[in-house]
Amino acid sequence: MRKTLSEISNFLGGRVVGDRDIVITGVSGLKEAGPGDLTFLANPKYLPLLKTTKASAVIVAEDVSAEGPALIRVANPSLAFTRVVALIKESLTPRIRGVHPTAVISPDAVLAENVGVGPHVVIEPGVRIGRGTMIGAGSYVGEKAVVGEETLIYPNVTLREDVSVGSRVIIHSGSVIGCDGFGYLTVEEKHMKIPQMGTVVIEDDVEIGACVTIDRARFDRTVIGKGTKVDNLVQIAHNVRTGENCIIVSQVGIAGSTTLGKNVILAGQVGVAGHLHVGDGAVVMAQSGISKDVAAKAVMFGSPADEHRQAARTLGHVGRLSHYVERIKALEEKIASLEESLKKRMDT
Amino acid sequence: MRKTLSEISNFLGGRVVGDRDIVITGVSGLKEAGPGDLTFLANPKYLPLLKTTKASAVIVAEDVSAEGPALIRVANPSLAFTRVVALIKESLTPRIRGVHPTAVISPDAVLAENVGVGPHVVIEPGVRIGRGTMIGAGSYVGEKAVVGEETLIYPNVTLREDVSVGSRVIIHSGSVIGCDGFGYLTVEEKHMKIPQMGTVVIEDDVEIGACVTIDRARFDRTVIGKGTKVDNLVQIAHNVRTGENCIIVSQVGIAGSTTLGKNVILAGQVGVAGHLHVGDGAVVMAQSGISKDVAAKAVMFGSPADEHRQAARTLGHVGRLSHYVERIKALEEKIASLEESLKKRMDT
Amino acid sequence: MRKTLSEISNFLGGRVVGDRDIVITGVSGLKEAGPGDLTFLANPKYLPLLKTTKASAVIVAEDVSAEGPALIRVANPSLAFTRVVALIKESLTPRIRGVHPTAVISPDAVLAENVGVGPHVVIEPGVRIGRGTMIGAGSYVGEKAVVGEETLIYPNVTLREDVSVGSRVIIHSGSVIGCDGFGYLTVEEKHMKIPQMGTVVIEDDVEIGACVTIDRARFDRTVIGKGTKVDNLVQIAHNVRTGENCIIVSQVGIAGSTTLGKNVILAGQVGVAGHLHVGDGAVVMAQSGISKDVAAKAVMFGSPADEHRQAARTLGHVGRLSHYVERIKALEEKIASLEESLKKRMDT
Repeated sequence: MRKTLSEISNFLGGRVVGDRDIVITGVSGLKEAGPGDLTFLANPKYLPLLKTTKASAVIVAEDVSAEGPALIRVANPSLAFTRVVALIKESLTPRIRGVHPTAVISPDAVLAENVGVGPHVVIEPGVRIGRGTMIGAGSYVGEKAVVGEETLIYPNVTLREDVSVGSRVIIHSGSVIGCDGFGYLTVEEKHMKIPQMGTVVIEDDVEIGACVTIDRARFDRTVIGKGTKVDNLVQIAHNVRTGENCIIVSQVGIAGSTTLGKNVILAGQVGVAGHLHVGDGAVVMAQSGISKDVAAKAVMFGSPADEHRQAARTLGHVGRLSHYVERIKALEEKIASLEESLKKRMDT
Repeated sequence: MRKTLSEISNFLGGRVVGDRDIVITGVSGLKEAGPGDLTFLANPKYLPLLKTTKASAVIVAEDVSAEGPALIRVANPSLAFTRVVALIKESLTPRIRGVHPTAVISPDAVLAENVGVGPHVVIEPGVRIGRGTMIGAGSYVGEKAVVGEETLIYPNVTLREDVSVGSRVIIHSGSVIGCDGFGYLTVEEKHMKIPQMGTVVIEDDVEIGACVTIDRARFDRTVIGKGTKVDNLVQIAHNVRTGENCIIVSQVGIAGSTTLGKNVILAGQVGVAGHLHVGDGAVVMAQSGISKDVAAKAVMFGSPADEHRQAARTLGHVGRLSHYVERIKALEEKIASLEESLKKRMDT
Repeated sequence: MRKTLSEISNFLGGRVVGDRDIVITGVSGLKEAGPGDLTFLANPKYLPLLKTTKASAVIVAEDVSAEGPALIRVANPSLAFTRVVALIKESLTPRIRGVHPTAVISPDAVLAENVGVGPHVVIEPGVRIGRGTMIGAGSYVGEKAVVGEETLIYPNVTLREDVSVGSRVIIHSGSVIGCDGFGYLTVEEKHMKIPQMGTVVIEDDVEIGACVTIDRARFDRTVIGKGTKVDNLVQIAHNVRTGENCIIVSQVGIAGSTTLGKNVILAGQVGVAGHLHVGDGAVVMAQSGISKDVAAKAVMFGSPADEHRQAARTLGHVGRLSHYVERIKALEEKIASLEESLKKRMDT
């Protein structure tokens, strides 16, 4: 990147305070930035860093002033910064151009315009891939799978047969979409496999991290709702349905047939049992275990999880157990002494 | 599928109630089914759904009647349904026919009849693969590994050198069998790698989920017992041995040298420490942590885990801590008041 | 291997007790060993096994005597044994010789001498790979990534663009280095991706297990310090930095921007929240959850974690809750009876 501050400010519809002709050559965080970098300040608690940052310019809110770096004042600094960074990133993303000759593509697959296919990719019969989508090296797209437009599949991803992936989806390396749900019928101590005949639907604008596993439904479909973001090493079992715009952090496991509402947040290493519902906007804190339905907007903590203020009170009591035990001992001593004195008086 | 109800009933040794000539074109769940579908009812609590299902026919137990759909009465509806579904699934499983020309197969590997090898597979020297086994696209089979008959390896699996995989095994995408055990010798704060010279044996009829890691033994072998089923993202460390027909749910971790008996169930996200034994038929509930041997048939819960009824009692007490603290306060007040009145009386 | 005991003893600088001409053909553990095997005894509690081992020879400490097997006495038996085993393992490690013709290597990549590249590997433009490094079948090395000397990348690994991997590093199959950090800016309930423009640096002598995910930094770099060992299925988020010689056991998750000192040990399934510091030599016990900074050399346990002795005391109290509740009941009864007798006496 090589743009003047006024060019960037115009792009953002902002207002420059300071030298409009500074040349910006990169972007960075407030602490990490150096000369030539543009950065941003969104959280007022970092205001003191404006004095020490080595950045050449900072995107700030309308009411922020600073000595030192030049400023671009905007309504929403985080958003503005992200727009600048996206601009740069766009130009940085390694693009796959055309179909690599080592890819094995069925003549019965249909690839739209500008699809990029990396080396050693395999695309089976009946697959359809939308315009501008890229499939990274070594990835596998199973029979009759459908992938939308402008989607980015990183190297070494496995999309099993029949799965459906939307548009503007990102799937990171090592992930497996559409592996069999974990279902058995136990007859005389032996486990017979229950065929998993459904599929997985990944809606538009979803991002799936690395080494994520999403199981196909027993019948019907497992669904990742539009705009939901899934971090690395997450397990999503058969017939799970997440609403739109959920955030599912690393190493979460969601058991079969559970449904999440919209804008649910599951923090790292959370487990959710099967056949439950987690309501819209609920938040489950890290390492918690959910074994009952969760109400909309509830904030849950613990394993098994409780409403988080209740869980905090309980944890507080647990932490003070030594103290309570002391109080019980003191009571026992007082009672003994009362009994003693009462006995004495009765004897008199 | 396109079969009459009487054909399916004959296959199952069942008895039709209703129109024997209905044509069945698919299978589904009671709730999801539509016209042309066959479904089943095993759990009596779903009896009311018999009235509302849109399925054309339902497999039921001997004593079930219904208005609406046709019925096939059998002794075990779940089992019967699974037999029908397996029939269909068999015909649906994408079969790999022959050896794809892009596969790199050592001339020193021995492939039996009807082995299917997908594109970009690598099979190293000394490998032996049994009749009817399929190796999915991009999978790697290391030197001297042995795979049995009718086994299904999905795309992008890694089997390291010397591992042994039985017959009728299924291994899902992204899994790594035979990676090195995690062993170091720490000398002056530096960790020297202890070579892991053993291997992994996956016995017959095992199923391994996606992105599972099973470490090779330091010496000797890590063993997954016959008929055991392992879900996605499970970690099995070096020298672990599981008995037959265990169920190991997603994101479980089993540390080194621990042994499981037969028919053990480890629910999701369970951790088992090293050098322990979990007895036959034991069940460990989700997110529990096992740090001691577990008796046969025990049901364990918590981290650290306790016998589940004891754990439930303890959890109950923990949940009532506010209440107990109130009772301690009440006692303290009563004692104070007793002491007071006793003091008054002594003063008189 | 086929060496006499005296040859091995000379290599180790040890002293033989017994027949110097015994031929050693393999190595094994004390319990598993058979005739021809060399084994070792480091922990005095296994001394009784010296009588029953079937090994032909045992490496022992200076002061150990035994009837039965021949001995090699050395200062540090574990270390000595590892040196022997490493010797053997070295000769056992399957070596990749040359560049396989199916590998797709950019003409703009630079490979030093004796680099081995397996079948179906992809190496993008601008990559540099050091002398003696091996890249296993199906692995992907992204644009401008740098790999040091004598490093071993197992099959089906993904190294994303720009990552830097040191010398003598081992990375196991299925791992993904340099996937995007999990960062979004939420505007009106929708999550906008924050580009992750930094990278990952894996320093020298690191080992990374199978199916590990290490996210690239938002800016700057995620760092795995020299000599650190990471087990399978671990998640390391963006901008994390580990010190030298840490041990990170299977299924651990470390959230964004957290730093570990030197020689930190995180046991299995531990979670560490973001923006924290874990001090040098700290140990976190299995399944614990760290939500505050950890002091150097602290030993932590629980979720949320506490200093381990404090956590053990608290757990002890929790386990005795039934007992404490009985004591509260007993107090209530005694108080009631005291009140009763006091009331009676006042009535008289």
